[in-house]
Amino acid sequence: MCNDDFTNPLFLINMSSSRNASTDDFRSAAPLRHAKEIQFAGPIELELGGQLESVTCAYETWGSLNKDRSNAILVCHAISGDSHAAKHDADDDPGWWDRLIGPGKPIDTNRFFVICPNVLGGCRGTTGPSDVIPGSNPPQRYGAQFPRITIGDIVMIQRLLADSLGIEAFRAVIGGSLGGHQAMIWSIRYPQSVQTCIAIATSPRLTNQALGFDVVARNAIQTDPNFCDGQYYDSDLRPDTGLAIARMLGHITYLSSQAMEAKFDPDRHDPRQFASIFEQRFSVGSYLAHQGEKFTTRFDANSYVAISMAMDLLDLGSSRLQLMESFDDLRCDCLIISFSSDWLFPPRQSQDIVEALSALGKPVTYAEITTDAGHDAFLIDKDIDQYAGLIEAKLGTLSDPDSPLTLAEEAILEMVSPDSSVLDLGCGDGRLLSALAARGHNRLVGVEVAQDDLVRAAKRGLNVIDYDLNQGLPAFIDGQFDYVVLSGTLQAVANIESLFDEMMRVGKHTIVSFPNFAYRALREDYVMRGRSPKANGAFNFDWFNTPNRRFPSIADVCDLCDQKGIAIKSEIYFDSESNRRVSAIDDPNLNADTAILLLSPT
Amino acid sequence: MCNDDFTNPLFLINMSSSRNASTDDFRSAAPLRHAKEIQFAGPIELELGGQLESVTCAYETWGSLNKDRSNAILVCHAISGDSHAAKHDADDDPGWWDRLIGPGKPIDTNRFFVICPNVLGGCRGTTGPSDVIPGSNPPQRYGAQFPRITIGDIVMIQRLLADSLGIEAFRAVIGGSLGGHQAMIWSIRYPQSVQTCIAIATSPRLTNQALGFDVVARNAIQTDPNFCDGQYYDSDLRPDTGLAIARMLGHITYLSSQAMEAKFDPDRHDPRQFASIFEQRFSVGSYLAHQGEKFTTRFDANSYVAISMAMDLLDLGSSRLQLMESFDDLRCDCLIISFSSDWLFPPRQSQDIVEALSALGKPVTYAEITTDAGHDAFLIDKDIDQYAGLIEAKLGTLSDPDSPLTLAEEAILEMVSPDSSVLDLGCGDGRLLSALAARGHNRLVGVEVAQDDLVRAAKRGLNVIDYDLNQGLPAFIDGQFDYVVLSGTLQAVANIESLFDEMMRVGKHTIVSFPNFAYRALREDYVMRGRSPKANGAFNFDWFNTPNRRFPSIADVCDLCDQKGIAIKSEIYFDSESNRRVSAIDDPNLNADTAILLLSPT
Repeated sequence: MCNDDFTNPLFLINMSSSRNASTDDFRSAAPLRHAKEIQFAGPIELELGGQLESVTCAYETWGSLNKDRSNAILVCHAISGDSHAAKHDADDDPGWWDRLIGPGKPIDTNRFFVICPNVLGGCRGTTGPSDVIPGSNPPQRYGAQFPRITIGDIVMIQRLLADSLGIEAFRAVIGGSLGGHQAMIWSIRYPQSVQTCIAIATSPRLTNQALGFDVVARNAIQTDPNFCDGQYYDSDLRPDTGLAIARMLGHITYLSSQAMEAKFDPDRHDPRQFASIFEQRFSVGSYLAHQGEKFTTRFDANSYVAISMAMDLLDLGSSRLQLMESFDDLRCDCLIISFSSDWLFPPRQSQDIVEALSALGKPVTYAEITTDAGHDAFLIDKDIDQYAGLIEAKLGTLSDPDSPLTLAEEAILEMVSPDSSVLDLGCGDGRLLSALAARGHNRLVGVEVAQDDLVRAAKRGLNVIDYDLNQGLPAFIDGQFDYVVLSGTLQAVANIESLFDEMMRVGKHTIVSFPNFAYRALREDYVMRGRSPKANGAFNFDWFNTPNRRFPSIADVCDLCDQKGIAIKSEIYFDSESNRRVSAIDDPNLNADTAILLLSPT
Repeated sequence: MCNDDFTNPLFLINMSSSRNASTDDFRSAAPLRHAKEIQFAGPIELELGGQLESVTCAYETWGSLNKDRSNAILVCHAISGDSHAAKHDADDDPGWWDRLIGPGKPIDTNRFFVICPNVLGGCRGTTGPSDVIPGSNPPQRYGAQFPRITIGDIVMIQRLLADSLGIEAFRAVIGGSLGGHQAMIWSIRYPQSVQTCIAIATSPRLTNQALGFDVVARNAIQTDPNFCDGQYYDSDLRPDTGLAIARMLGHITYLSSQAMEAKFDPDRHDPRQFASIFEQRFSVGSYLAHQGEKFTTRFDANSYVAISMAMDLLDLGSSRLQLMESFDDLRCDCLIISFSSDWLFPPRQSQDIVEALSALGKPVTYAEITTDAGHDAFLIDKDIDQYAGLIEAKLGTLSDPDSPLTLAEEAILEMVSPDSSVLDLGCGDGRLLSALAARGHNRLVGVEVAQDDLVRAAKRGLNVIDYDLNQGLPAFIDGQFDYVVLSGTLQAVANIESLFDEMMRVGKHTIVSFPNFAYRALREDYVMRGRSPKANGAFNFDWFNTPNRRFPSIADVCDLCDQKGIAIKSEIYFDSESNRRVSAIDDPNLNADTAILLLSPT
C-alpha cells in the first residue's frame, strides 16, 4: 500500500491542489497499458438495493487458460491497488505483486492463468463514481449518485467476468487486506467456484479502531469544500486536500510503529522539502505530504469513499457462532496468513477466521508471519518470501521430504484406528500426519508454532495451524477428532492441566507420548552427581537453558490422569537407548525413557 | 482525554460548524470559575527566538501553602486539559483529576498546596494565539503571529508563577502525557526546584507514529479553508471542521483497540443520530463526530496547533547516552508510570526514561500498570486506583509492614558490607532492602514485576523498578552497584546465563540465594517414588503447575559459575527444615535446602 517512496521521481513534482477534471480524469490520466475491458449490460442489481445500468470491468491476465479451464487464479487487489498486479514483460511497469506472480514464481504463470480485475467502484477502468452514467444526456458522471456497494457487489462483477471467460471455478482466489475480504466472500457466495481461498492480512470485519480511522478519512474527504457532495467532476477544483489527508492517515495505519521508527528516525528533524500545502516539519510529515499528494494524481475521492465504505460494511460476525454460520457453506481449502506487527488487521482477527473454519472441520492452514512491517507486509518482498512457500504448497507445488518415523511415532500409528480423524499438536514437519495420510486417513490437522516446520508440513500437503498450545484448543469443538496426538511436546508446554482438559474435550481419544524424567539413567545421574539429571536423547539438556518447561515421570502423568478422571486405555513403553519395548510389568517408570499413553475420559 | 461521553448533555446540542468570534471567544465562552490570573510583564524571550510582550497565566489552587512554602505541588495538564484539575467544593464542576486531588486523597489538599496552571499557548486563561496582542491598536489577536513555543517555554511561565507565589521548590511536579513532559522539563531546567518528578503515560519524545498522527491533525486544521493562515478571529467562520477532525483522530489514539471494541461493539451498526456534518454510519463514527464537534466549542484551533507542535518538538534523545545527558542534572526523586495498552506513549518509552535515570544512579521508581484503557488510563478512576498508591508513597505516605526476614535474607545481610550500594533483583515487598536501609545503606534499588509487591516496596520508601529479569539488566551500567542480590528468584528465571552475565557486569559482587533441588528430601522422594520430587517449603509444587522455571542443585550453580569464570567468594548453606546452617564440609548439596553464594568475576 505504500511501496513507493521518496525515490520515486514523482516526489519532485510540485502538485497543485486542484486539477482540471475535463482534461484529466482518472482513467485517461493513468491508462493501464495491459488492461482489457469487458462490458456487462444491465440493469445490474446491487446488494443494498441500488442498480447500475451497465458495468465495465477492467482486468489484466497472465498465462494461458488451459483446455478444461481449470487453471485460473483470481487475484484481488487492496483499496488503493488496481489490475496491474504484475509485469507482463521485462519493460513493463512494476506490478504490486511482482514477487509472487510470473513465470516460475510462486503463482506460476507457466502453470496458471492469472486474472486481476479492478474493483467495482474503483477508478482504474472498472465502473466507479467517476464514470459517465450510461445514457445520460448531456453526459453526466455518477459522483454522489453512484449507489452504495458492498464486497458482495465487487465479487458479483468478478463472477460475471469469470463467466464471460468461461471459467466455472477458480483454482484459487487470492488477495491481501480488502483483497482477502474478496477472496472470503467469493468462497462464501460461490462455494462451487473456489478450490482454494488464500486470504492474507485480512479479517472477518474491521476492528472498531480501523473503522474509526476510515470514518475520519471519509470525513476529511467529505468535508473538503471542493467535495460538493461528490459532484465535483464538472468543477475545476477537486477534494484533493481531503483525499490527501485520508491517504496520510492510511499510510500510518499500514506501517507498524517499529517500521516507522526505522524509516523516519534517521532524519527525523531533517525532512525533505518540496512545495506543498501540507506541513513538513518532520521527516514523517514530509513523507506523508508526498504520499498524500501523489495519491490525488491517481485516485478518485468518490472511489475512496465508496470502496472504504464497502470494506467497513463487511461483517462476517464477531462471535465464533456467527463466523461459523458465515463460513458454513465453504467448500474450498483455505490458507489464512497474518503478520505479527499488523495492528490494522491484527493476527487475532485471522485467528478468529481460522478457529471458525477449523471448528467447522473445513481444511485450513494458518501462519502468523513474524515481521516488523505491519499491514504492508503482504506487499513487501522479504515478507512475501516468508509466506510464498505456503502459497506454493496450496497450489500444489509439493515436496515430501523423507524423514523416517521415530519409535514413538510408529507406536502412535499402531494406536490410531484406520480411517479416523487426527489432530496432531506440535506436529513438527508433519511426518506423522504424512504417514497417516499415506495410510488413507483424510481428516488430519496439525498444530505447530515453528514457522519453518509449518511451511514444511504445508509442503507435504497437510493442513497445519500456527498456534500456541498454552492457550488451550479454542480452535476446535467438542469431540471434533477421533484422536488428539501430543507427541514429544508435553514437556514443552507450561499449562499442562488446561491442555489435558482441552485434549479430552476435543478428542474422543488422546495419545500422549513423552520422555520419562524418572528414567533409570536420570535417577542415577541425579542421585550420584547431585545435579539436574542428564541422559542421552531427549534428556541431553543443561538445567539453565533446556527448552523443556515440565519434567514429568510416567508416574507423574499417570497420577495427573487419575486425578483428572482420565482413563489410560493402552500404554506402550520404550527404552530407546537399547531400542526395545519395556513391558508394563517391568517397571517402565524406571526402565523406559519414553511413554506412549492412549487416554480417554473415564 | 476522552472522559466525557454520550451521557453528556452537550451531545444533544446541534452545533453549527461556524461560530461568531466577536461574541464567543474561548476565554469568555467557558470561564473557569475558580481560576486566578496573574500577569507577567515582558518582553518574555522564548526558546526558539520569539518573544511575547506580556503573559497572563491562569491557574487554580487547592489547599494552603505552609509557612516555609515547602508543601506546594505543581500539577500539569495534557493537551486538551486546563487548570480545573479538581473540584473546589461539592457543587463545583468535576475536575479531570478529581480522583487524585482533594482532602484526604492521594494528592492530599489537607497536606499540600496544589497549583494547576493552564499552559502557555492554551485557550483557557493563559496567553495563547486567541489573545489580543498587548498594545495593538486597533486590538488584534495573535493568530498566526503567536510565536512558536516549546515545553521549555510552558515551564518557564510556570516558573514565573511559582516565583510570584514565593515558591522556590515544589514538593512534586506531576503530570500525565504532555503533563509528564512538563514535569520532566521542570526537573531538567530547574533541578533545585523539584523534589519529586511524577511523569505518567509520557515519553522522552513522540514516536514517529505519534508524530505522524499530529502532523495529519495539524494538516486537517491548517488546510481548513476557514483557517485563513490562523487569522480567523475576525471572521464569522472558524476552522471547526479541521479542528473536529484533529480531535477525532486524537480520540482514536487515546484508546486501545480492546477498549474501542468494548465501547463501540455492542451498538456497532446502531449509532446514535444527531445533526452533524460528519458521518455517523457506525457507533464509533457517531461518537467521534460528537467528540469532534464538542471540542470546537471549548478549544481554539491555533492553540491545538501551537501546543501539539510544542509536544512534537520535545526531544530528550533517542539513545541511552542522549537521554543520560538530558537527565544528568536532575536532583529529584522520580516516579515513572506507564500503561500496558498505551500505544501512543508505549511503555517502552517510559522504560527508556527509567533506564537512563537508573544508569545515572538517580532515584527512580517505575511501574507499568496493566490495563485495557490505552493512553487514557491516566485519567480513568479504576486505573488511577492502581497507581495512586505509588504517588502516595512518593509523597511520603509511607507504611512499613512488619515482615520478618527469612534465614536466607539474614545471611545475605551478613554478606553485604556496610554503606555499600545494593540492587535487589526480584525484591518482592522490599523487606530485605528495608532492612538494609535501616542499617544505613542509601544507594538501594529494587526490581520487581508483581504489581502489588511493587506498591508495597514503594510504600516502604524504596525505589523499585518494574522489570522482567529475562531481558537482562540494560537499565544498569557496568559496576553500578557494590552488590547485586538475586534472592529466592533464580529458579523463576528462564534466561539464566544472560542474567548471570548481567549481574557480573552490573555488580562488583553478586549474592545468589536459591533453593537446592538436590536436597536430600528431594533425591529420596524422586528415587523412591519415581516422581517429580516434592518437599516442604520452596519445593512444594506439582510438576504440572510449578511457577519455577529452572531446578538447579547447588552443584549445578557452582558448575555454571566455574564454566563462566565466576569465583565463589563465600557460601552459606541452610537446612531450613531443621533451622540450622550446614557446613561446607558436610555435603551441602545433599544436606542443605538453601544456598547463599557470594560471587565475583575471577
